[in-house]
Amino acid sequence: MNYKMMSRFLSLICMAEAVFMLPALAISLYDGQGRAAIAFAITIGIAAVLYVILKLLSRNCANRLTAKEGFVCTAASWILMSLVGSLPFVISGEIPHFVDALFEIVSGFTTTGASILADIEALSRGMLYWRSFSHWVGGMGVLVFLLAIVPGGKKSDGFTMHLFRAESPGPEVGKLVPKLRQTALWLYGTYIALSLLNFAFLMFGDMNWFEALCTMFGTAGTGGFGVRGDSLGSFSPYIQNVTTVFMLLFGVNFSCYYLILLGQFRSVIRDEELRLYFCIVAISIALITWNIAGMYDTIGEGLRHAAFQVASIISTTGYSTVDFDMWPTFSKGILTVLMVTGACAGSTCGGMKCARVLLLFKGLRRNIRQMVHPNRVEVVRVNGRAVDEKVMSGVNGYLSAYVLILFLSFAVLCFDQFPSDPNFSGIGTNFSAVLACFNNVGPGFEAVGPTMNFGNFNILSKLVLTFDMLAGRLEIFPILLFFAPGSWKKN
Amino acid sequence: MNYKMMSRFLSLICMAEAVFMLPALAISLYDGQGRAAIAFAITIGIAAVLYVILKLLSRNCANRLTAKEGFVCTAASWILMSLVGSLPFVISGEIPHFVDALFEIVSGFTTTGASILADIEALSRGMLYWRSFSHWVGGMGVLVFLLAIVPGGKKSDGFTMHLFRAESPGPEVGKLVPKLRQTALWLYGTYIALSLLNFAFLMFGDMNWFEALCTMFGTAGTGGFGVRGDSLGSFSPYIQNVTTVFMLLFGVNFSCYYLILLGQFRSVIRDEELRLYFCIVAISIALITWNIAGMYDTIGEGLRHAAFQVASIISTTGYSTVDFDMWPTFSKGILTVLMVTGACAGSTCGGMKCARVLLLFKGLRRNIRQMVHPNRVEVVRVNGRAVDEKVMSGVNGYLSAYVLILFLSFAVLCFDQFPSDPNFSGIGTNFSAVLACFNNVGPGFEAVGPTMNFGNFNILSKLVLTFDMLAGRLEIFPILLFFAPGSWKKN
Repeated sequence: MNYKMMSRFLSLICMAEAVFMLPALAISLYDGQGRAAIAFAITIGIAAVLYVILKLLSRNCANRLTAKEGFVCTAASWILMSLVGSLPFVISGEIPHFVDALFEIVSGFTTTGASILADIEALSRGMLYWRSFSHWVGGMGVLVFLLAIVPGGKKSDGFTMHLFRAESPGPEVGKLVPKLRQTALWLYGTYIALSLLNFAFLMFGDMNWFEALCTMFGTAGTGGFGVRGDSLGSFSPYIQNVTTVFMLLFGVNFSCYYLILLGQFRSVIRDEELRLYFCIVAISIALITWNIAGMYDTIGEGLRHAAFQVASIISTTGYSTVDFDMWPTFSKGILTVLMVTGACAGSTCGGMKCARVLLLFKGLRRNIRQMVHPNRVEVVRVNGRAVDEKVMSGVNGYLSAYVLILFLSFAVLCFDQFPSDPNFSGIGTNFSAVLACFNNVGPGFEAVGPTMNFGNFNILSKLVLTFDMLAGRLEIFPILLFFAPGSWKKN
Repeated sequence: MNYKMMSRFLSLICMAEAVFMLPALAISLYDGQGRAAIAFAITIGIAAVLYVILKLLSRNCANRLTAKEGFVCTAASWILMSLVGSLPFVISGEIPHFVDALFEIVSGFTTTGASILADIEALSRGMLYWRSFSHWVGGMGVLVFLLAIVPGGKKSDGFTMHLFRAESPGPEVGKLVPKLRQTALWLYGTYIALSLLNFAFLMFGDMNWFEALCTMFGTAGTGGFGVRGDSLGSFSPYIQNVTTVFMLLFGVNFSCYYLILLGQFRSVIRDEELRLYFCIVAISIALITWNIAGMYDTIGEGLRHAAFQVASIISTTGYSTVDFDMWPTFSKGILTVLMVTGACAGSTCGGMKCARVLLLFKGLRRNIRQMVHPNRVEVVRVNGRAVDEKVMSGVNGYLSAYVLILFLSFAVLCFDQFPSDPNFSGIGTNFSAVLACFNNVGPGFEAVGPTMNFGNFNILSKLVLTFDMLAGRLEIFPILLFFAPGSWKKN
């Protein structure tokens, strides 16, 4: 392990986090929330001290990073960022227990949106801002952000590519333009532009600037932390519809926007992942609307809630306009499947990603064809191009890690006596809690449904779910490598 | 497709099934159950006619079979066997609806043990016998049975191997002895010997010969159809403990018994799959006993029920002594995980099989090691031998097919309005119904728990679950190939 290089990245993380916290400090001061302001000030101080120490440790670092080190650095960055990010909650006493605070901020950075808070509106605005902002920066990735703004050496493209790969979701991660820094800049540029557009649309509705800002953070990062106890339920249909559209847009692979900018509309329209994504969305909305129509006054209202919930779950945002846990099993079944598929690779979403689902289906079809015609060589093609066998075996490896973690987490959660409420199914609660956290969705069903929270789980369960959120956001292997003893040996 | 060869196998299936039905006919006649006797007689007649027709169609068949044809033949055999096997229920009117009868007999042959019957004890003894016997012949496989008894040509070993592979569970299927027919004979010999031993032990208890026979069929095939409404709940602790032991024994890879016969005890004790299997069993029993101890008068009673249920679920039998759906979430969580793992490859059990779970874990560890040391070549080893990469990619392909079918089936089941009872979780019911059928376990949780049945699902759900049972028993690919249009082209 290249410890000096890791220290360099961790120091940058501390600096970035201190800067990110300044607006939260300002809001707390403006609101006269003394304890919150002090908490942010202390945390910024701690981050600054850590920055100096790590900076000193990283002197004369060699500008090289293997793929393994890139993965471990990425995991370490996210873990340090979460540890520091949880401090304001603990210091201010707004979330007194450290494990709860860690759960909450990891849920923020990983854009999960699962909360341990029973009463969100009791938080000060500074804390609400910090919670929601963590979605925004976690969505596109903090390392991608650093790659975009920190000037690297001339030959740094090769080694920072590993960080980029580790943090960007999807089975195949590539650069849009030859230079990595340009790619990162372009990604964040698009992200900021779309976010501003979303913010502008929300400001036209019945939201004040603070609500619009936080809701935009949650939508753009596909996170799901809201500022009201009923998520978006008490906002106007206009706000809900705007959010539906933007959740879907942030679920699109950002390289599609790049192609649109280049005028290559045909390749965007023909993109198989995008087609699958919008197909799933359209069919799910139609089926759920049909299923829940009788529960609402008009079909239009049913359609609005169905579209919102489908967009929210497939993009793994987790906002809600109604308590969808009260919907019929049919609708909940569809939402469960959407939790797992997720939206497109290269977006801010969680889940398996449509690209992987597509490759799994095509891989299965290939296997069957290979059995039917054992002498033919069958190649999996996406968008007309043959998919590298390494990518195919990577997808399979991902699936097996995914399934093993899913079942192990579920088993550990069952140790917990929660939920004690006999109205809820324990199996259903625990399984959907793991699905909701591992796929970075947020709310699940039963006792972790949209009107409930994760606060009643015990410490072990919360730590497991925190691990699942990180594993889900970083696509498993960086976080597994971080915990593999072999990764930490001296080169 | 070699249609003549397929006809030959299908004709043998019809003949075997007609012979298998004779004892059921005899029991019906002895009991004076006229309608049941007529139903069996008519079905035997139909099977005989089919035998003659298929025999004529198979004249001058070429003695060759590709792997694909072997898979499709196996699937076709199981489907024909189920269609014919369901007729007695329909003709006698004891299960009037054809889809219900098909579900019931597929559940029998695939050793699932899921029933659509609300009142099992209302069935005539002839039908009870037929239902339970289907477990016994389905457990070890009807084609393996035919391979053992039907004399093949001198060079038939190569092509019938494909049938053997398609019907025998596990990631790697090999012959124990050089000749396939000897292997099949040996397997059935051991199976019959263990079955007789089980029968003898049961006869020492408070069972009459009919109960002992049916219970033995269900135990040996790891099926789970019982003769009483409360499964094994009202039998003595002795019967329950005997069944616990034999369920575990039938979950062991039969090649272990062969090695024991050869005196190679060391290789049996060192077998990694066997160790994993008994490890999982021991840990699960200990944890569940601790969890449920308070619910029973003595710890001994808790231990008995825990051991019985663990053995029943991991061997995917599905018998029960108590309503384990009333147990705490912790115990149910463990049982859910056991449903998926299943017991050993090369046994009569369903599920993923411990061997595959072992390979998935080792594959994941290999992936991580490969990332830590990219320049080393890492090989997966089981029992000291390197595992062929084809087997590894086969396990991955199996997992992806498994997960895709699991989620698709779950989604289709959610179309169903069942369960209407608000005390049950729809998601939990549907998910555990798919798990219970696909892994050939039988009972699930919630509205398909051990005291409930599958009768209230609609036709579509029942057909999907029937497909899942067949797919689970034949390990997915034979049944997928059967439905792939390319499989049916002329050579």
